[in-house]
Amino acid sequence: MFDGPFSPAIDPAERQARLQLARTRRIGPVTFREALQHFGSARAACANFPVASDACVAREEAELARAGGRFLVLGEVGYPAALANLPDAPPILSAIGDLSLLARRTLAIVGAREASLAGRHFAAELAAALGRAGFVVASGLARGIDAAAHEAALPTGTVAVLAGGIDQVYPPQNASLQQAIAARGLLLAETPFGTAPVARAFPRRNRIVSGLSAGIVVVEAAARSGSLITAQCAAEQGREVFVVPGSPMDPRHAGSNSLIRDGAILVRDANDIISVFGLPQSDRQAVEKPSQKQDDSATATVLSALGSVPTPVDELVRRCQVSAATVAEVLLALELEGRLERHRGNRVSLM
Amino acid sequence: MFDGPFSPAIDPAERQARLQLARTRRIGPVTFREALQHFGSARAACANFPVASDACVAREEAELARAGGRFLVLGEVGYPAALANLPDAPPILSAIGDLSLLARRTLAIVGAREASLAGRHFAAELAAALGRAGFVVASGLARGIDAAAHEAALPTGTVAVLAGGIDQVYPPQNASLQQAIAARGLLLAETPFGTAPVARAFPRRNRIVSGLSAGIVVVEAAARSGSLITAQCAAEQGREVFVVPGSPMDPRHAGSNSLIRDGAILVRDANDIISVFGLPQSDRQAVEKPSQKQDDSATATVLSALGSVPTPVDELVRRCQVSAATVAEVLLALELEGRLERHRGNRVSLM
Repeated sequence: MFDGPFSPAIDPAERQARLQLARTRRIGPVTFREALQHFGSARAACANFPVASDACVAREEAELARAGGRFLVLGEVGYPAALANLPDAPPILSAIGDLSLLARRTLAIVGAREASLAGRHFAAELAAALGRAGFVVASGLARGIDAAAHEAALPTGTVAVLAGGIDQVYPPQNASLQQAIAARGLLLAETPFGTAPVARAFPRRNRIVSGLSAGIVVVEAAARSGSLITAQCAAEQGREVFVVPGSPMDPRHAGSNSLIRDGAILVRDANDIISVFGLPQSDRQAVEKPSQKQDDSATATVLSALGSVPTPVDELVRRCQVSAATVAEVLLALELEGRLERHRGNRVSLM
Repeated sequence: MFDGPFSPAIDPAERQARLQLARTRRIGPVTFREALQHFGSARAACANFPVASDACVAREEAELARAGGRFLVLGEVGYPAALANLPDAPPILSAIGDLSLLARRTLAIVGAREASLAGRHFAAELAAALGRAGFVVASGLARGIDAAAHEAALPTGTVAVLAGGIDQVYPPQNASLQQAIAARGLLLAETPFGTAPVARAFPRRNRIVSGLSAGIVVVEAAARSGSLITAQCAAEQGREVFVVPGSPMDPRHAGSNSLIRDGAILVRDANDIISVFGLPQSDRQAVEKPSQKQDDSATATVLSALGSVPTPVDELVRRCQVSAATVAEVLLALELEGRLERHRGNRVSLM
């Protein structure tokens, strides 16, 4: 992972110098790495030009500690290994939560903030299945797909990378989710404690989401969307890019479908992802959707007649050649599972 | 195209012998070709073993003529060139309609009988765009996708291949479409006049649909569906396979998405197909959807916010940052174009 100035164990003075160097204005990740390479160590770099003060770093570290967090410094044990390999790896990360998640194999799930209900549902299913298969799920805590993925992966392990400081609650809609991830998962932030999230921080945040991960799964990326850029960045980082396809009639899939044309791996279910990496901790059985257990013939028949376009229930009964009562029963079960939407005129569609 | 016994011009006696040989029980397309190769001609073959009688063939040809049709014999001028190259090319085809369509470049569009409204709409859009670009659209006259494609391609040229005899009206729902294709397009059938369509005839029909075509476009193929088999057969015939992706949550796309994973070309719009072949008869301009002409910024903005999942109109107005009146105008235009569906609670979705 690291040669030269990046030794697996760094002494406290060097660590302190790295914190000061990293918190110096105008020193970004690439300059940080160059400075270390040029001077041989952060201590030498700090002796040669003006860096952030000792006190300034100590103040931030104390604030972070009060919030229950700590710094992860590039080059020290515990800093995420996959991320450390990037040429623009963050010099420091603030972290709150379960640091052991960083030692596990991670997959990112990203997508539209203005996602469809179906897309959010699918992202949640994928996240839960990947979690059951032993993967940690990383994302950016945005509304829509990100939030759905984090939430579903909370029980098995999820890492949220914030665009602002680690104390910043953003977006407000996800405040309680952010709190839950701090308690049961892991929050990471590159920007200093107390920094409000600004526009240019989001693509920088995205490179960390994909950088932490062995692969990235895109659910609902429109043309010229942030998720599309994240996917391209992930590919440049050498990460596998997985994409959930969608109807070309829905502009929310324009970017996704283009990614697949450009060579991304089409995803039909979690197995299409897991099979690329192998199962890290559990067997394939556990990956199957729980709802598939009740796949008796009536359910299967009704499901095969249902789609994302609303269909009259009468037509379903006629087409499925099952009794109206059975169709009603199956529809109710699907509705309770959150898989069915009802529409005007006694029509139903899959979510 | 043809060597040896398949000369571009065949004399009337040889043609008659080919008809008799082809109408002999137990002589399928492959045996027909082998017999010609073995004996050097159909005339020689007919002299060496019992074949269908002269009278039997004359009777069928007369019935066909009364219905306004004629035979196309493998090896004679006018028999579709792409089809003639198949090892199991039909020895004879019955044809009713515009034979000049067989000289033009052809693309097949196939898909589910139980297709969604959105799928049928998309198939029709593709067929119309391919037609405007100069392609003839071939399909199997089934309900659903096939019918939508034929109908949309009627003004520009469409070929329907029937599973039964050319006089057989099947399926009954498409009776008037079948009549319209006989009048303005072309009907083809491999099975003899008067033969009812039987189950095993459908996959055999499908090999002709793809065999006539430079490529095949699949819209909504479920797992283990007929369209999936047609696509695999088309690939074996060396035809390009194009597939419209869909949500993995809808089982109607399971086969389609698997085809894309297996290397079929993902289709976002007609240009993804046309660009593979180049434009045969018109320019790219003509391929654009007519509705795209009015692609002013408000329409584009509203379209980008719409999807297949119903969205409240209020939210559209807020999200698009256009006036409510403009949004209403754009929605009305989309509705009149048949691209918009309205739902309970002042919600709208794209079809």
